[in-house]
Amino acid sequence: MTRIVCEQLAPQVGRLAENHRQIVRTISETTTAGADILVLPELATSGYVFESPAEARECAIPPDDPMIDEWTAAVDGDSVVVCGYAERGPDDVLYNSAVLFDATGVLARYRKTHLWDREKLFFAPGSQPPPVTPTPFGRIAVMICYDLEFPEYTRRAALEGADLIAVPTNWPEVPRPAGERPPEVLIAQAAARVNRVAVACCDRSGTERGQRWTEGTAIVSHDGWIAAVAEADGRARWDTDLAAARDKNISTRNHLFGDRRTDLYGSPR
Amino acid sequence: MTRIVCEQLAPQVGRLAENHRQIVRTISETTTAGADILVLPELATSGYVFESPAEARECAIPPDDPMIDEWTAAVDGDSVVVCGYAERGPDDVLYNSAVLFDATGVLARYRKTHLWDREKLFFAPGSQPPPVTPTPFGRIAVMICYDLEFPEYTRRAALEGADLIAVPTNWPEVPRPAGERPPEVLIAQAAARVNRVAVACCDRSGTERGQRWTEGTAIVSHDGWIAAVAEADGRARWDTDLAAARDKNISTRNHLFGDRRTDLYGSPR
Repeated sequence: MTRIVCEQLAPQVGRLAENHRQIVRTISETTTAGADILVLPELATSGYVFESPAEARECAIPPDDPMIDEWTAAVDGDSVVVCGYAERGPDDVLYNSAVLFDATGVLARYRKTHLWDREKLFFAPGSQPPPVTPTPFGRIAVMICYDLEFPEYTRRAALEGADLIAVPTNWPEVPRPAGERPPEVLIAQAAARVNRVAVACCDRSGTERGQRWTEGTAIVSHDGWIAAVAEADGRARWDTDLAAARDKNISTRNHLFGDRRTDLYGSPR
Repeated sequence: MTRIVCEQLAPQVGRLAENHRQIVRTISETTTAGADILVLPELATSGYVFESPAEARECAIPPDDPMIDEWTAAVDGDSVVVCGYAERGPDDVLYNSAVLFDATGVLARYRKTHLWDREKLFFAPGSQPPPVTPTPFGRIAVMICYDLEFPEYTRRAALEGADLIAVPTNWPEVPRPAGERPPEVLIAQAAARVNRVAVACCDRSGTERGQRWTEGTAIVSHDGWIAAVAEADGRARWDTDLAAARDKNISTRNHLFGDRRTDLYGSPR
Protein backbone atom coordinates (compact mmCIF):
# COMPACT_ATOMS: atom_id res chain seq x y z
CA MET A 1 0.00 0.00 0.00
CA THR A 2 1.03 3.55 -0.68
CA ARG A 3 0.35 6.26 1.89
CA ILE A 4 -0.58 9.63 0.41
CA VAL A 5 -0.40 12.60 2.77
CA CYS A 6 -1.39 16.23 2.24
CA GLU A 7 -0.22 18.71 4.86
CA GLN A 8 -2.25 21.90 4.94
CA LEU A 9 0.48 24.38 5.91
CA ALA A 10 -0.01 28.09 6.57
CA PRO A 11 2.86 29.93 4.90
CA GLN A 12 3.40 33.57 5.92
CA VAL A 13 3.50 35.99 3.06
CA GLY A 14 7.01 37.19 2.27
CA ARG A 15 8.70 35.23 5.10
CA LEU A 16 10.81 32.98 2.96
CA ALA A 17 13.17 31.65 5.63
CA GLU A 18 10.39 30.68 8.06
CA ASN A 19 8.33 29.09 5.31
CA HIS A 20 11.36 27.14 4.13
CA ARG A 21 11.99 25.80 7.63
CA GLN A 22 8.34 24.76 7.89
CA ILE A 23 8.61 22.89 4.59
CA VAL A 24 11.81 21.09 5.60
CA ARG A 25 10.35 20.11 8.97
CA THR A 26 7.15 18.80 7.39
CA ILE A 27 8.99 16.78 4.75
CA SER A 28 11.21 15.21 7.37
CA GLU A 29 8.40 14.45 9.82
CA THR A 30 5.89 13.02 7.38
CA THR A 31 8.26 10.94 5.28
CA THR A 32 9.87 9.54 8.41
CA ALA A 33 6.39 8.71 9.71
CA GLY A 34 5.51 6.73 6.59
CA ALA A 35 4.20 9.12 3.95
CA ASP A 36 5.13 7.68 0.57
CA ILE A 37 3.72 10.62 -1.37
CA LEU A 38 3.55 14.02 0.32
CA VAL A 39 1.74 16.96 -1.26
CA LEU A 40 2.27 20.48 0.09
CA PRO A 41 0.39 23.68 -0.85
CA GLU A 42 0.80 26.11 -3.72
CA LEU A 43 3.31 28.90 -3.09
CA ALA A 44 4.39 27.24 0.16
CA THR A 45 7.62 29.26 0.14
CA SER A 46 6.19 32.70 -0.38
CA GLY A 47 2.57 33.02 0.68
CA TYR A 48 -0.01 34.25 -1.80
CA VAL A 49 -1.47 37.69 -1.21
CA PHE A 50 1.31 39.88 -2.58
CA GLU A 51 0.91 43.63 -2.44
CA SER A 52 3.05 44.27 -5.49
CA PRO A 53 5.10 42.55 -8.18
CA ALA A 54 8.19 43.74 -6.28
CA GLU A 55 7.09 41.88 -3.18
CA ALA A 56 6.45 38.72 -5.19
CA ARG A 57 9.89 39.05 -6.74
CA GLU A 58 11.58 39.42 -3.35
CA CYS A 59 10.44 36.00 -2.24
CA ALA A 60 10.78 34.13 -5.54
CA ILE A 61 13.65 31.68 -5.82
CA PRO A 62 15.47 30.25 -8.83
CA PRO A 63 14.76 26.63 -9.76
CA ASP A 64 18.26 25.64 -8.63
CA ASP A 65 18.06 27.42 -5.27
CA PRO A 66 19.87 25.61 -2.44
CA MET A 67 16.59 25.58 -0.50
CA ILE A 68 15.30 22.95 -2.89
CA ASP A 69 18.43 20.90 -2.23
CA GLU A 70 17.56 21.06 1.47
CA TRP A 71 14.06 19.80 0.69
CA THR A 72 15.39 16.78 -1.15
CA ALA A 73 17.88 16.16 1.67
CA ALA A 74 14.99 16.12 4.16
CA VAL A 75 13.20 13.24 2.39
CA ASP A 76 13.35 9.93 4.24
CA GLY A 77 13.63 6.70 2.23
CA ASP A 78 12.13 6.51 -1.24
CA SER A 79 9.22 8.91 -0.58
CA VAL A 80 8.31 11.54 -3.15
CA VAL A 81 7.17 15.08 -2.43
CA VAL A 82 5.31 17.79 -4.37
CA CYS A 83 5.73 21.38 -3.23
CA GLY A 84 4.57 24.69 -4.69
CA TYR A 85 6.87 27.71 -4.74
CA ALA A 86 7.31 31.12 -6.33
CA GLU A 87 9.92 30.67 -9.04
CA ARG A 88 12.18 33.30 -10.55
CA GLY A 89 13.00 31.74 -13.90
CA PRO A 90 16.32 31.96 -15.73
CA ASP A 91 14.66 34.64 -17.86
CA ASP A 92 13.99 36.66 -14.65
CA VAL A 93 10.26 36.10 -15.18
CA LEU A 94 8.21 34.87 -12.20
CA TYR A 95 6.20 31.64 -12.31
CA ASN A 96 3.79 29.95 -9.92
CA SER A 97 5.57 26.61 -9.91
CA ALA A 98 5.77 23.24 -8.27
CA VAL A 99 8.49 20.67 -8.03
CA LEU A 100 8.30 16.90 -7.64
CA PHE A 101 11.31 15.40 -5.92
CA ASP A 102 12.68 12.57 -3.85
CA ALA A 103 15.85 12.09 -1.83
CA THR A 104 17.92 11.87 -5.00
CA GLY A 105 16.81 15.23 -6.34
CA VAL A 106 14.21 16.85 -8.57
CA LEU A 107 12.14 14.46 -10.70
CA ALA A 108 9.86 16.97 -12.47
CA ARG A 109 9.08 20.65 -12.66
CA TYR A 110 5.83 22.37 -13.55
CA ARG A 111 4.72 25.98 -14.02
CA LYS A 112 1.02 26.78 -13.52
CA THR A 113 -0.61 27.43 -16.88
CA HIS A 114 -4.04 28.71 -15.76
CA LEU A 115 -3.52 31.76 -13.54
CA TRP A 116 -6.18 32.98 -11.14
CA ASP A 117 -7.11 36.67 -10.93
CA ARG A 118 -4.32 38.80 -9.40
CA GLU A 119 -1.75 36.09 -10.05
CA LYS A 120 -1.78 37.52 -13.55
CA LEU A 121 -0.17 40.68 -12.10
CA PHE A 122 2.74 38.76 -10.65
CA PHE A 123 3.35 35.61 -12.64
CA ALA A 124 3.71 34.55 -16.24
CA PRO A 125 1.76 31.42 -17.20
CA GLY A 126 3.70 28.25 -17.93
CA SER A 127 3.90 26.99 -21.48
CA GLN A 128 3.96 23.23 -20.90
CA PRO A 129 1.44 20.73 -19.53
CA PRO A 130 2.54 18.74 -16.50
CA PRO A 131 4.86 15.84 -17.14
CA VAL A 132 3.53 12.47 -15.98
CA THR A 133 6.35 11.20 -13.85
CA PRO A 134 6.94 7.56 -12.92
CA THR A 135 7.67 6.96 -9.24
CA PRO A 136 7.87 3.75 -7.20
CA PHE A 137 4.24 4.41 -6.15
CA GLY A 138 2.67 5.24 -9.49
CA ARG A 139 2.73 7.91 -12.15
CA ILE A 140 2.18 11.44 -10.87
CA ALA A 141 1.03 14.55 -12.72
CA VAL A 142 1.28 17.89 -10.93
CA MET A 143 -1.26 20.67 -11.45
CA ILE A 144 -1.73 23.85 -9.44
CA CYS A 145 -5.06 25.12 -8.09
CA TYR A 146 -7.16 26.66 -10.92
CA ASP A 147 -5.53 24.25 -13.43
CA LEU A 148 -7.78 21.56 -11.95
CA GLU A 149 -10.92 23.35 -13.13
CA PHE A 150 -10.22 22.64 -16.80
CA PRO A 151 -11.49 19.14 -17.52
CA GLU A 152 -9.50 19.05 -20.74
CA TYR A 153 -6.37 19.32 -18.63
CA THR A 154 -7.17 16.56 -16.18
CA ARG A 155 -8.30 14.36 -19.07
CA ARG A 156 -5.02 15.03 -20.83
CA ALA A 157 -3.01 13.95 -17.78
CA ALA A 158 -5.12 10.82 -17.42
CA LEU A 159 -4.60 9.94 -21.07
CA GLU A 160 -0.88 10.39 -20.51
CA GLY A 161 -1.12 7.68 -17.89
CA ALA A 162 -1.34 9.58 -14.60
CA ASP A 163 -2.37 7.46 -11.62
CA LEU A 164 -2.47 10.49 -9.33
CA ILE A 165 -2.96 14.17 -9.98
CA ALA A 166 -1.21 16.05 -7.18
CA VAL A 167 -2.60 19.54 -6.76
CA PRO A 168 -0.86 22.09 -4.56
CA THR A 169 -3.50 24.76 -4.09
CA ASN A 170 -4.47 27.96 -2.28
CA TRP A 171 -8.26 28.07 -2.44
CA PRO A 172 -9.63 31.48 -1.50
CA GLU A 173 -12.90 30.86 0.35
CA VAL A 174 -15.93 31.34 -1.90
CA PRO A 175 -19.62 31.18 -0.97
CA ARG A 176 -21.27 27.77 -0.91
CA PRO A 177 -24.56 26.44 0.36
CA ALA A 178 -24.59 25.10 3.92
CA GLY A 179 -23.42 21.51 4.12
CA GLU A 180 -21.77 21.52 0.70
CA ARG A 181 -18.14 20.75 0.00
CA PRO A 182 -15.99 23.42 -1.61
CA PRO A 183 -16.80 23.65 -5.32
CA GLU A 184 -13.20 22.86 -6.21
CA VAL A 185 -13.57 19.53 -4.41
CA LEU A 186 -16.68 18.70 -6.46
CA ILE A 187 -14.67 19.41 -9.59
CA ALA A 188 -11.85 17.18 -8.33
CA GLN A 189 -14.37 14.39 -7.62
CA ALA A 190 -15.79 14.54 -11.13
CA ALA A 191 -12.32 14.67 -12.69
CA ALA A 192 -11.36 11.61 -10.66
CA ARG A 193 -14.45 9.62 -11.57
CA VAL A 194 -14.57 10.30 -15.30
CA ASN A 195 -10.89 9.37 -15.61
CA ARG A 196 -10.43 6.78 -12.86
CA VAL A 197 -7.51 8.76 -11.49
CA ALA A 198 -6.88 9.74 -7.88
CA VAL A 199 -6.59 13.45 -7.07
CA ALA A 200 -4.80 14.84 -4.01
CA CYS A 201 -5.50 18.53 -3.39
CA CYS A 202 -3.39 20.18 -0.69
CA ASP A 203 -4.88 23.53 0.32
CA ARG A 204 -3.37 25.98 2.79
CA SER A 205 -4.86 27.20 6.05
CA GLY A 206 -5.30 30.42 7.97
CA THR A 207 -6.05 33.98 6.86
CA GLU A 208 -3.59 36.13 4.92
CA ARG A 209 -4.02 39.91 4.67
CA GLY A 210 -7.76 39.44 5.11
CA GLN A 211 -7.98 36.56 2.65
CA ARG A 212 -9.64 33.54 4.23
CA TRP A 213 -8.64 30.18 2.82
CA THR A 214 -11.04 27.32 2.30
CA GLU A 215 -8.89 24.77 4.17
CA GLY A 216 -10.44 22.30 1.77
CA THR A 217 -7.65 19.76 1.50
CA ALA A 218 -9.07 16.54 0.09
CA ILE A 219 -7.78 13.30 -1.33
CA VAL A 220 -10.22 11.84 -3.85
CA SER A 221 -10.19 8.19 -4.85
CA HIS A 222 -10.25 7.06 -8.47
CA ASP A 223 -14.01 6.42 -8.02
CA GLY A 224 -14.58 10.08 -7.22
CA TRP A 225 -15.32 9.64 -3.53
CA ILE A 226 -13.61 11.50 -0.72
CA ALA A 227 -10.90 9.24 0.65
CA ALA A 228 -9.53 11.72 3.18
CA VAL A 229 -9.76 15.34 4.29
CA ALA A 230 -7.49 17.29 6.62
CA GLU A 231 -7.79 16.13 10.21
CA ALA A 232 -7.40 18.42 13.22
CA ASP A 233 -3.61 18.23 12.76
CA GLY A 234 -3.91 19.63 9.22
CA ARG A 235 -3.01 16.30 7.62
CA ALA A 236 -5.06 14.18 5.21
CA ARG A 237 -3.91 10.58 4.89
CA TRP A 238 -4.99 7.80 2.56
CA ASP A 239 -3.54 4.34 2.06
CA THR A 240 -4.15 2.96 -1.41
CA ASP A 241 -2.76 1.06 -4.37
CA LEU A 242 -2.66 3.65 -7.12
CA ALA A 243 -2.04 1.11 -9.88
CA ALA A 244 -5.44 -0.45 -9.17
CA ALA A 245 -7.04 2.41 -11.11
CA ARG A 246 -5.27 1.64 -14.37
CA ASP A 247 -8.09 -0.53 -15.62
CA LYS A 248 -10.43 1.92 -17.35
CA ASN A 249 -13.14 -0.64 -18.04
CA ILE A 250 -16.21 0.40 -16.10
CA SER A 251 -18.66 -2.19 -17.43
CA THR A 252 -18.51 -5.26 -19.62
CA ARG A 253 -18.77 -3.04 -22.67
CA ASN A 254 -17.50 0.36 -21.52
CA HIS A 255 -13.98 1.76 -21.39
CA LEU A 256 -13.68 5.31 -20.11
CA PHE A 257 -11.18 6.33 -22.72
CA GLY A 258 -12.26 4.03 -25.53
CA ASP A 259 -15.83 5.33 -25.30
CA ARG A 260 -14.76 8.89 -26.08
CA ARG A 261 -16.17 10.16 -29.36
CA THR A 262 -13.05 11.91 -30.53
CA ASP A 263 -14.72 12.28 -33.95
CA LEU A 264 -17.13 14.72 -32.28
CA TYR A 265 -14.82 16.72 -30.02
CA GLY A 266 -11.22 15.86 -30.71
CA SER A 267 -8.83 14.75 -28.00
CA PRO A 268 -6.68 16.79 -25.63
CA ARG A 269 -3.64 14.82 -26.78
CA MET B 1 -38.58 33.73 -14.77
CA THR B 2 -38.48 30.38 -16.50
CA ARG B 3 -39.80 27.29 -14.73
CA ILE B 4 -37.86 24.11 -15.46
CA VAL B 5 -39.56 20.84 -14.52
CA CYS B 6 -38.26 17.27 -14.66
CA GLU B 7 -40.84 14.53 -14.21
CA GLN B 8 -39.38 11.22 -13.09
CA LEU B 9 -41.72 8.81 -14.90
CA ALA B 10 -41.66 5.03 -14.65
CA PRO B 11 -42.15 3.65 -18.15
CA GLN B 12 -43.01 -0.05 -18.43
CA VAL B 13 -40.77 -2.03 -20.69
CA GLY B 14 -42.39 -2.86 -24.00
CA ARG B 15 -45.75 -1.21 -23.19
CA LEU B 16 -45.66 1.45 -25.85
CA ALA B 17 -49.31 2.54 -25.72
CA GLU B 18 -49.41 2.94 -21.93
CA ASN B 19 -46.07 4.77 -21.90
CA HIS B 20 -47.28 7.08 -24.66
CA ARG B 21 -50.43 7.93 -22.71
CA GLN B 22 -48.33 8.67 -19.62
CA ILE B 23 -46.13 11.02 -21.67
CA VAL B 24 -49.11 12.87 -23.18
CA ARG B 25 -50.75 13.25 -19.78
CA THR B 26 -47.55 14.55 -18.19
CA ILE B 27 -46.89 17.06 -20.97
CA SER B 28 -50.42 18.37 -20.74
CA GLU B 29 -50.50 18.58 -16.94
CA THR B 30 -47.11 20.17 -16.40
CA THR B 31 -47.20 22.70 -19.23
CA THR B 32 -50.73 23.75 -18.25
CA ALA B 33 -49.51 24.14 -14.66
CA GLY B 34 -46.70 26.48 -15.70
CA ALA B 35 -43.68 24.42 -16.74
CA ASP B 36 -41.82 26.39 -19.40
CA ILE B 37 -39.25 23.68 -19.99
CA LEU B 38 -40.18 20.06 -19.27
CA VAL B 39 -37.62 17.27 -19.34
CA LEU B 40 -38.75 13.63 -19.41
CA PRO B 41 -36.60 10.48 -19.04
CA GLU B 42 -34.54 8.53 -21.53
CA LEU B 43 -36.47 5.87 -23.45
CA ALA B 44 -39.74 7.08 -21.94
CA THR B 45 -41.70 5.30 -24.68
CA SER B 46 -40.14 1.90 -24.43
CA GLY B 47 -38.55 1.19 -21.08
CA TYR B 48 -34.92 0.19 -20.89
CA VAL B 49 -34.18 -3.42 -19.91
CA PHE B 50 -34.82 -5.20 -23.21
CA GLU B 51 -34.43 -8.95 -23.37
CA SER B 52 -33.46 -8.99 -27.02
CA PRO B 53 -32.89 -6.78 -30.04
CA ALA B 54 -36.25 -8.01 -31.33
CA GLU B 55 -38.00 -6.69 -28.26
CA ALA B 56 -36.29 -3.32 -28.59
CA ARG B 57 -37.33 -3.18 -32.23
CA GLU B 58 -40.96 -3.93 -31.40
CA CYS B 59 -41.30 -0.80 -29.33
CA ALA B 60 -39.14 1.56 -31.41
CA ILE B 61 -40.97 4.20 -33.40
CA PRO B 62 -39.97 6.17 -36.49
CA PRO B 63 -39.04 9.83 -36.02
CA ASP B 64 -42.25 10.90 -37.79
CA ASP B 65 -44.53 8.63 -35.76
CA PRO B 66 -47.97 10.12 -35.05
CA MET B 67 -47.31 9.65 -31.34
CA ILE B 68 -44.84 12.51 -31.50
CA ASP B 69 -47.51 14.67 -33.15
CA GLU B 70 -49.71 13.89 -30.15
CA TRP B 71 -46.93 15.01 -27.83
CA THR B 72 -46.61 18.36 -29.58
CA ALA B 73 -50.41 18.74 -29.55
CA ALA B 74 -50.41 18.22 -25.77
CA VAL B 75 -48.10 21.18 -25.13
CA ASP B 76 -49.81 24.19 -23.57
CA GLY B 77 -48.71 27.69 -24.59
CA ASP B 78 -45.12 28.28 -25.66
CA SER B 79 -43.56 25.64 -23.41
CA VAL B 80 -40.84 23.34 -24.72
CA VAL B 81 -40.40 19.66 -23.92
CA VAL B 82 -37.55 17.15 -24.15
CA CYS B 83 -38.43 13.46 -24.25
CA GLY B 84 -36.36 10.34 -24.82
CA TYR B 85 -37.62 7.53 -27.02
CA ALA B 86 -36.48 4.41 -28.84
CA GLU B 87 -36.16 5.42 -32.50
CA ARG B 88 -36.32 3.20 -35.55
CA GLY B 89 -34.45 5.28 -38.08
CA PRO B 90 -35.21 5.53 -41.79
CA ASP B 91 -32.35 3.10 -42.29
CA ASP B 92 -34.19 0.59 -40.04
CA VAL B 93 -31.41 0.98 -37.47
CA LEU B 94 -32.40 1.62 -33.84
CA TYR B 95 -31.21 4.67 -31.92
CA ASN B 96 -31.54 5.84 -28.32
CA SER B 97 -32.95 9.24 -29.19
CA ALA B 98 -34.54 12.36 -27.79
CA VAL B 99 -36.67 15.04 -29.33
CA LEU B 100 -37.09 18.70 -28.39
CA PHE B 101 -40.45 20.14 -29.33
CA ASP B 102 -43.09 22.73 -28.63
CA ALA B 103 -46.71 23.09 -29.66
CA THR B 104 -45.69 23.95 -33.22
CA GLY B 105 -43.72 20.74 -33.72
CA VAL B 106 -40.24 19.28 -33.42
CA LEU B 107 -37.44 21.81 -32.88
CA ALA B 108 -34.47 19.43 -32.65
CA ARG B 109 -33.55 15.77 -32.71
CA TYR B 110 -30.65 13.98 -31.08
CA ARG B 111 -29.32 10.42 -31.07
CA LYS B 112 -27.23 9.31 -28.08
CA THR B 113 -23.59 9.05 -29.08
CA HIS B 114 -22.11 7.38 -25.97
CA LEU B 115 -23.92 4.09 -25.37
CA TRP B 116 -23.92 2.34 -22.01
CA ASP B 117 -23.22 -1.37 -21.71
CA ARG B 118 -26.06 -3.52 -23.14
CA GLU B 119 -27.42 -0.58 -25.11
CA LYS B 120 -24.65 -1.50 -27.54
CA LEU B 121 -26.59 -4.70 -28.27
CA PHE B 122 -29.74 -2.83 -29.27
CA PHE B 123 -28.83 0.62 -30.56
CA ALA B 124 -26.43 2.22 -32.98
CA PRO B 125 -24.63 5.32 -31.67
CA GLY B 126 -25.56 8.68 -33.12
CA SER B 127 -23.09 10.44 -35.38
CA GLN B 128 -23.82 14.08 -34.51
CA PRO B 129 -23.37 16.17 -31.37
CA PRO B 130 -26.51 17.78 -29.96
CA PRO B 131 -27.74 20.88 -31.69
CA VAL B 132 -27.96 23.96 -29.46
CA THR B 133 -31.51 25.10 -30.05
CA PRO B 134 -32.84 28.59 -29.37
CA THR B 135 -36.13 28.71 -27.46
CA PRO B 136 -38.01 31.59 -25.84
CA PHE B 137 -36.40 30.52 -22.54
CA GLY B 138 -32.81 30.10 -23.61
CA ARG B 139 -30.64 27.85 -25.74
CA ILE B 140 -31.01 24.15 -25.02
CA ALA B 141 -28.65 21.25 -25.79
CA VAL B 142 -29.94 17.72 -25.32
CA MET B 143 -27.72 14.88 -24.14
CA ILE B 144 -28.71 11.43 -22.97
CA CYS B 145 -27.47 9.74 -19.77
CA TYR B 146 -23.86 8.50 -20.23
CA ASP B 147 -23.19 11.36 -22.70
CA LEU B 148 -23.01 13.63 -19.67
CA GLU B 149 -19.95 11.82 -18.33
CA PHE B 150 -17.69 13.10 -21.09
CA PRO B 151 -16.54 16.59 -20.08
CA GLU B 152 -15.43 17.28 -23.64
CA TYR B 153 -19.04 16.92 -24.69
CA THR B 154 -20.56 19.24 -22.11
CA ARG B 155 -17.78 21.74 -22.79
CA ARG B 156 -18.56 21.57 -26.47
CA ALA B 157 -22.24 22.31 -25.89
CA ALA B 158 -21.35 25.22 -23.62
CA LEU B 159 -18.99 26.65 -26.22
CA GLU B 160 -21.82 26.37 -28.75
CA GLY B 161 -23.82 28.65 -26.47
CA ALA B 162 -26.03 26.28 -24.48
CA ASP B 163 -27.74 27.88 -21.47
CA LEU B 164 -29.21 24.56 -20.38
CA ILE B 165 -28.14 20.98 -20.96
CA ALA B 166 -31.29 18.83 -20.78
CA VAL B 167 -30.45 15.22 -19.95
CA PRO B 168 -33.10 12.51 -20.24
CA THR B 169 -31.55 9.63 -18.34
CA ASN B 170 -32.07 6.14 -16.91
CA TRP B 171 -29.46 5.80 -14.18
CA PRO B 172 -29.04 2.21 -13.03
CA GLU B 173 -28.35 2.34 -9.30
CA VAL B 174 -24.64 2.01 -8.51
CA PRO B 175 -22.96 1.76 -5.12
CA ARG B 176 -22.15 5.01 -3.35
CA PRO B 177 -21.05 5.91 0.17
CA ALA B 178 -23.81 6.73 2.66
CA GLY B 179 -24.95 10.31 2.41
CA GLU B 180 -23.45 10.91 -1.01
CA ARG B 181 -25.34 12.01 -4.09
CA PRO B 182 -25.34 9.75 -7.14
CA PRO B 183 -21.99 10.01 -8.93
CA GLU B 184 -23.73 11.17 -12.09
CA VAL B 185 -25.05 14.17 -10.18
CA LEU B 186 -21.54 15.07 -9.02
CA ILE B 187 -20.43 14.96 -12.64
CA ALA B 188 -23.37 17.18 -13.63
CA GLN B 189 -22.46 19.65 -10.88
CA ALA B 190 -18.86 19.92 -12.08
CA ALA B 191 -19.96 20.26 -15.72
CA ALA B 192 -22.32 23.05 -14.70
CA ARG B 193 -19.76 24.93 -12.67
CA VAL B 194 -16.80 24.79 -15.04
CA ASN B 195 -19.02 26.00 -17.89
CA ARG B 196 -21.59 28.18 -16.09
CA VAL B 197 -24.39 26.23 -17.71
CA ALA B 198 -27.47 24.78 -16.02
CA VAL B 199 -28.00 21.01 -16.25
CA ALA B 200 -31.41 19.33 -15.86
CA CYS B 201 -31.17 15.55 -15.47
CA CYS B 202 -34.48 13.67 -15.57
CA ASP B 203 -34.05 10.12 -14.28
CA ARG B 204 -36.75 7.44 -14.23
CA SER B 205 -38.15 5.66 -11.19
CA GLY B 206 -39.12 2.18 -10.13
CA THR B 207 -37.55 -1.21 -10.76
CA GLU B 208 -37.56 -2.91 -14.17
CA ARG B 209 -36.83 -6.63 -14.55
CA GLY B 210 -34.76 -6.47 -11.37
CA GLN B 211 -32.93 -3.29 -12.36
CA ARG B 212 -33.23 -0.64 -9.65
CA TRP B 213 -33.05 2.95 -10.82
CA THR B 214 -31.29 5.68 -8.92
CA GLU B 215 -34.27 8.06 -8.99
CA GLY B 216 -31.59 10.74 -8.98
CA THR B 217 -33.39 13.48 -10.91
CA ALA B 218 -31.60 16.77 -10.25
CA ILE B 219 -31.58 20.26 -11.68
CA VAL B 220 -28.18 21.89 -11.23
CA SER B 221 -27.70 25.64 -11.36
CA HIS B 222 -24.99 27.28 -13.46
CA ASP B 223 -22.94 27.60 -10.26
CA GLY B 224 -22.91 23.84 -9.84
CA TRP B 225 -25.25 23.68 -6.85
CA ILE B 226 -28.36 21.54 -6.62
CA ALA B 227 -31.32 23.77 -7.46
CA ALA B 228 -33.97 21.04 -7.23
CA VAL B 229 -34.41 17.30 -6.87
CA ALA B 230 -37.51 15.18 -7.38
CA GLU B 231 -40.12 15.77 -4.69
CA ALA B 232 -42.49 13.10 -3.42
CA ASP B 233 -44.63 13.62 -6.54
CA GLY B 234 -41.68 12.74 -8.78
CA ARG B 235 -41.26 16.31 -10.00
CA ALA B 236 -38.26 18.61 -9.68
CA ARG B 237 -39.02 22.29 -10.25
CA TRP B 238 -36.72 25.30 -10.51
CA ASP B 239 -37.51 28.89 -11.41
CA THR B 240 -34.59 30.72 -12.97
CA ASP B 241 -33.39 33.11 -15.62
CA LEU B 242 -31.20 30.97 -17.84
CA ALA B 243 -29.70 33.91 -19.71
CA ALA B 244 -28.12 35.13 -16.46
CA ALA B 245 -25.43 32.50 -16.90
CA ARG B 246 -24.17 33.81 -20.21
CA ASP B 247 -21.52 35.95 -18.59
CA LYS B 248 -18.53 33.63 -18.28
CA ASN B 249 -16.39 36.09 -16.31
CA ILE B 250 -15.79 34.56 -12.89
CA SER B 251 -13.37 37.15 -11.51
CA THR B 252 -12.02 40.51 -12.60
CA ARG B 253 -9.40 38.74 -14.67
CA ASN B 254 -10.87 35.31 -15.38
CA HIS B 255 -13.18 34.15 -18.15
CA LEU B 256 -14.10 30.46 -18.06
CA PHE B 257 -13.68 30.00 -21.78
CA GLY B 258 -11.01 32.63 -22.42
CA ASP B 259 -8.76 31.07 -19.78
CA ARG B 260 -8.65 27.74 -21.59
CA ARG B 261 -5.16 26.85 -22.81
CA THR B 262 -6.20 25.52 -26.18
CA ASP B 263 -2.51 25.54 -27.15
CA LEU B 264 -2.03 22.72 -24.63
CA TYR B 265 -5.12 20.57 -25.21
CA GLY B 266 -7.01 21.80 -28.24
CA SER B 267 -10.68 22.63 -28.15
CA PRO B 268 -13.72 20.41 -28.55
CA ARG B 269 -14.99 22.70 -31.29
